[in-house]
Amino acid sequence: MNSFKLGIAGLGTVGVGVVKMLQQNAELISVRAGRDIEIISVTAGSRNKDRGVDLSSYDWVESLSDMAKDERLDAVVEVIGGSEGVVKEFVEEALQNGKHVITANKALLAHHGFALAEKAEKNNVGIAYEAAVAGGIPVIKSLREGLSGNRVTAVYGILNGTCNYILTEMRETGRDFADVLSEAQEKGYAEADPTFDVDGIDAAHKLVLLGALAFGVKPDFAALKPVGVRDVTSEDIQFAEEFGYRIKLIGMAKQDGDDYFQSLEPCFVPKGSALGSVEGVFNAVLTQGDFVDQTMMEGRGAGEGPTASAVLSDIVDLARGNVLPTFGAPVAQLKPVVWGSRDTGESEYYLRLVVEDHSGVLADLTACLKELDISIDQAIQRGDDAEERMVAILTHECSAVQIEKALNALGSLPCVVGKPTCMRLEKI
Amino acid sequence: MNSFKLGIAGLGTVGVGVVKMLQQNAELISVRAGRDIEIISVTAGSRNKDRGVDLSSYDWVESLSDMAKDERLDAVVEVIGGSEGVVKEFVEEALQNGKHVITANKALLAHHGFALAEKAEKNNVGIAYEAAVAGGIPVIKSLREGLSGNRVTAVYGILNGTCNYILTEMRETGRDFADVLSEAQEKGYAEADPTFDVDGIDAAHKLVLLGALAFGVKPDFAALKPVGVRDVTSEDIQFAEEFGYRIKLIGMAKQDGDDYFQSLEPCFVPKGSALGSVEGVFNAVLTQGDFVDQTMMEGRGAGEGPTASAVLSDIVDLARGNVLPTFGAPVAQLKPVVWGSRDTGESEYYLRLVVEDHSGVLADLTACLKELDISIDQAIQRGDDAEERMVAILTHECSAVQIEKALNALGSLPCVVGKPTCMRLEKI
Repeated sequence: MNSFKLGIAGLGTVGVGVVKMLQQNAELISVRAGRDIEIISVTAGSRNKDRGVDLSSYDWVESLSDMAKDERLDAVVEVIGGSEGVVKEFVEEALQNGKHVITANKALLAHHGFALAEKAEKNNVGIAYEAAVAGGIPVIKSLREGLSGNRVTAVYGILNGTCNYILTEMRETGRDFADVLSEAQEKGYAEADPTFDVDGIDAAHKLVLLGALAFGVKPDFAALKPVGVRDVTSEDIQFAEEFGYRIKLIGMAKQDGDDYFQSLEPCFVPKGSALGSVEGVFNAVLTQGDFVDQTMMEGRGAGEGPTASAVLSDIVDLARGNVLPTFGAPVAQLKPVVWGSRDTGESEYYLRLVVEDHSGVLADLTACLKELDISIDQAIQRGDDAEERMVAILTHECSAVQIEKALNALGSLPCVVGKPTCMRLEKI
Repeated sequence: MNSFKLGIAGLGTVGVGVVKMLQQNAELISVRAGRDIEIISVTAGSRNKDRGVDLSSYDWVESLSDMAKDERLDAVVEVIGGSEGVVKEFVEEALQNGKHVITANKALLAHHGFALAEKAEKNNVGIAYEAAVAGGIPVIKSLREGLSGNRVTAVYGILNGTCNYILTEMRETGRDFADVLSEAQEKGYAEADPTFDVDGIDAAHKLVLLGALAFGVKPDFAALKPVGVRDVTSEDIQFAEEFGYRIKLIGMAKQDGDDYFQSLEPCFVPKGSALGSVEGVFNAVLTQGDFVDQTMMEGRGAGEGPTASAVLSDIVDLARGNVLPTFGAPVAQLKPVVWGSRDTGESEYYLRLVVEDHSGVLADLTACLKELDISIDQAIQRGDDAEERMVAILTHECSAVQIEKALNALGSLPCVVGKPTCMRLEKI
């Protein structure tokens, strides 16, 4: 059979990883793909940079558009990043020219996934994006193919290694967020501008893709209001530990009948649980299906090797002719659901309040919660010698509406200083 | 597109699960497969048994051979079990008649996988067996497709839910093996004849398939000497706990250059580790690849829903035309490796000995180990008031050859009663 011919756009960490992997494991990859995989051309911002890999046998293309139109190519690998502008145009043009697109670009797909899926379908090509979510862990494949007989009811993920690393470090060292973040930046674990990671945007992009795939619906990034880890304090982490929990940035997409709900926010998860045990830069995805029950996958979410591994899996699939609908179903059959703004189910919650140090404070708090029919499971008060004390509460189950009311009511009590902190307990 | 037409052979737990899933999730399965999946015929031992599912719209076939020859069928689902006789003939005949085979039969594939893969390839059809290993967890798909760019260097698995349940129960309750086994049998978690499970044969079948897939080699069950959990004592479990480990029945297949090694035996794994945290009836598979590093998958390894989920994933794949070489590579390219009889690397080991209660015993043991250049990491002695004492030792790293010599030498010491117990530490 003819070789499967690739253009690679982007020669950063991931692009170089893909080239290395195709060079180093060429023989076994050919065996698995049933044909040779051949890099025809490459392109990147600067031609003369030493990338530690031999690119001399590939054509250097100056313009993305030239690569998108190159008639020799079966597929392009887009590992540049960014959701708008030239990258978006490149992907569109490649699809229009009948080329499969393999991409690690979660932002692009979270924002424009539906339109791109339409274009791919119209041109009989595939968009493969295993590398866009949870790096080396084959979660897209598992959801799109491995669990294809199931009605998936929920997906949970720890989807950003930087955030999970920061939360793990904060817990292990007792230091606060700013301190750990700046160390992570020095070590190269966090970007100079950490917004995308620590404010949950990167994880939200990934969650939106998982949700679309899991339920066969249109990806809808605009419907998700991500909350990052910036406001998690060392006190929260310590209270979690005392209550038997870990704080993790959890992406969740849930389907309950016709109700769809997605959220991305720091949650309390039980210490010994599957997600509670995921530490450091690792990622994990837990899926709940009607027949399979829970399955959990864990591994490295980023880095040259893991991400290249995901790209290669997509390349081999497409080379073998395994072309799938982008979100698991033809675009005409993707449901245009409305994502609920809050969970319709009940949850337990963690509340932390700073209160003035005078008598009757705890009575005021508990009366306020009782008024709203929220009962308390556990409470800790701290700071006996200080002017302000801290109170941490775990509630029993209540609705999202109840807890919103409680936060407003507690926040307006004269004895409460500032805004109360609240996190959901996820006992999966 | 035409519907994808199935015959289902076997209507036990799994067969009935497949029928239920195809009935209950018909619509979403059609969307994902891009065509309808249609059950044409079914067969089982007894026609009149009430199986709690409506079979009236399917043809009842009296003979397996008739199903294998039925020209209407695209694929047969074999969920009868057993590695020889009529089932083997049925699978062979179906393949010869150009039908894909979807099977949960690990024994059949572990023993005859290579010959069946040849037959499938010759007839341009696929053998799909996601349900044969680790139930609902898509491990076959992950190895065969998800990690296809990697040179896999090792696979580790907790592959038998019955054994893992027994070990978990023994640890949690302090009871001994026989006691927990008979309770498991009463509860239906273990078979009346538990040999296949507790002696490691079932897990060994699965490991052989994972090893073949991971390394692109012929499956070789005869080369594996499984050791089950029958001889694990409550003392071993307690010592493990004290040393900070859990005992798990670990299947391992490793590749180191041209050396291949597989083993299936109880091992010590660190308490907080990925495999050490897998409890009860759950299964898990951990893969080490050259680019992806470690990925871990966990979920239910058996039962109607999870196993049916795996069968459905295979059905949808084949209906979409995703036909893969049985062991990830065409049969002509599967390497005929010789599996080593012992690991060529070094490991730490757990040793437990019953010794007579007189002075100088510990000196004799340590001198014996020192003679063989094995150094001791930790040791516990127990049974101060008894005539016989128990000594548990964790060694530092040594080779399999060294530890074999040590077991012989220790066993011949006059102060040692009976045969010493030995388990490998797996610190993955």
